[in-house]
Amino acid sequence: MLIVGERINTSRKQVNEAVEKRDVLFIQADVKAQVEAGALLIDINAGSRFGSELEDLFWLIEVVQEAISVRLSLDSSDPHCLQKALRRVRDLPMVNSTTAEKSRFESMAPVIQERECDVVGLCMDERGIPKGVDQVMENAQRLVRNLEALGVKRERIYLDPLAQAVSIDTRAGLMALESIERIHKEFAGVKTICGLSNISFSLPKRSLINRTFLSLALKAGLSAALIDPLDKKLIGTLKATTLLLGQDPYCREYLKAFREGRLEN
Amino acid sequence: MLIVGERINTSRKQVNEAVEKRDVLFIQADVKAQVEAGALLIDINAGSRFGSELEDLFWLIEVVQEAISVRLSLDSSDPHCLQKALRRVRDLPMVNSTTAEKSRFESMAPVIQERECDVVGLCMDERGIPKGVDQVMENAQRLVRNLEALGVKRERIYLDPLAQAVSIDTRAGLMALESIERIHKEFAGVKTICGLSNISFSLPKRSLINRTFLSLALKAGLSAALIDPLDKKLIGTLKATTLLLGQDPYCREYLKAFREGRLEN
Repeated sequence: MLIVGERINTSRKQVNEAVEKRDVLFIQADVKAQVEAGALLIDINAGSRFGSELEDLFWLIEVVQEAISVRLSLDSSDPHCLQKALRRVRDLPMVNSTTAEKSRFESMAPVIQERECDVVGLCMDERGIPKGVDQVMENAQRLVRNLEALGVKRERIYLDPLAQAVSIDTRAGLMALESIERIHKEFAGVKTICGLSNISFSLPKRSLINRTFLSLALKAGLSAALIDPLDKKLIGTLKATTLLLGQDPYCREYLKAFREGRLEN
Repeated sequence: MLIVGERINTSRKQVNEAVEKRDVLFIQADVKAQVEAGALLIDINAGSRFGSELEDLFWLIEVVQEAISVRLSLDSSDPHCLQKALRRVRDLPMVNSTTAEKSRFESMAPVIQERECDVVGLCMDERGIPKGVDQVMENAQRLVRNLEALGVKRERIYLDPLAQAVSIDTRAGLMALESIERIHKEFAGVKTICGLSNISFSLPKRSLINRTFLSLALKAGLSAALIDPLDKKLIGTLKATTLLLGQDPYCREYLKAFREGRLEN
């Protein structure tokens, strides 16, 4: 599974302070650690920096790319920000995100067409958060069709089934898992991605629920996840799952992570 | 999922000592704790007590049944022991276990016919541990056919796919998961059960692998597992999985286990 490192997000207090103080060393040390821990992409999100988001994105992109050779995922709700920031990214970027909503999709189209990129598509539309797997699949279909029409290759499309809180809807976990399975079955070549935090909203021991969900999602076929690669318990669950799904010949990855102290029980 | 509490096993040092000293209070406190933690059956295994197995089983059955009203699973490789011990069990017993081997099955037939009971069938035959899912399914078929011929109802049959060590065969986890799925699909009504310890043989952080396997097995449809219900991390994974699979309305069970301090992150 592709790990997209989620730590460079200004909604995290320490990152916000580092951005505020233009603390180059803090940011560079953090991304180096994420990459060493297995992140193949680094997500950059400065959405909480009202008024200075674009300027902060520029700074973060420069600082990260100076430190390390890694692909970047640009994460913003503002298409203009995304479009301008995208031009500063050295290697093939990931754009996070569009939705199936007509207005959002139209405002994101020029961003996506600007250059070749991986595109995250959230499976929601004008009706809001999907109420069931069929609605997720309708949005998935619309996203695949419209992204392909823009010239995006299937293997560059990452669909997010939008896992909701199980505390609000008992079926939320099952819905997300079924959606992942069906996306891979019905749209061969298309990838799936998800974040982990919504699912456990308002419950105690959230990280336990989040990593258990990651494990089940991997079994369902999940291609990528936005996670903290320095979370040793999460990495433990990820490595153990990969092992149990027959994707770790000779247990090499599991044993390597263990020896390097990257997984915890 | 049905929890079969595995702690009363004389291969565990403390239990062996308690049996040796006829320490009634130790055994009774242990089974009470297991039942409070969610065990619906208590497995009793005195197989390590060469020469005194039957006598020790008699004592354990009496002591446990005096303490608490709970179903018992009798676990022995000796059919004669099982048959005699079975007569002392108050409520519907579980017999653990037969296999699809002709000689083992024949020696277990009178035990199974002695009284109505749940029967654990290990999916192995004369060829030994199955080499692939198809071989598991052949053994499953043979067990179901032969047990039904003895008058055992489908819902009393618990098939164990015999998860092997992933350190020996990379595909072992996947094989076990596929076997569980196929057993439920092809033999409607038949149940599945498994132990967790083989899968992680010779690897570090075994309990991490074991509980991740339990989670994936639950997704595959596992009906029952022989586990330690006092293992808080294991129970955490179990409760989180049940929640994510939509089997815990209003998160009641998860929140209850959390409040009672029965789950750990």
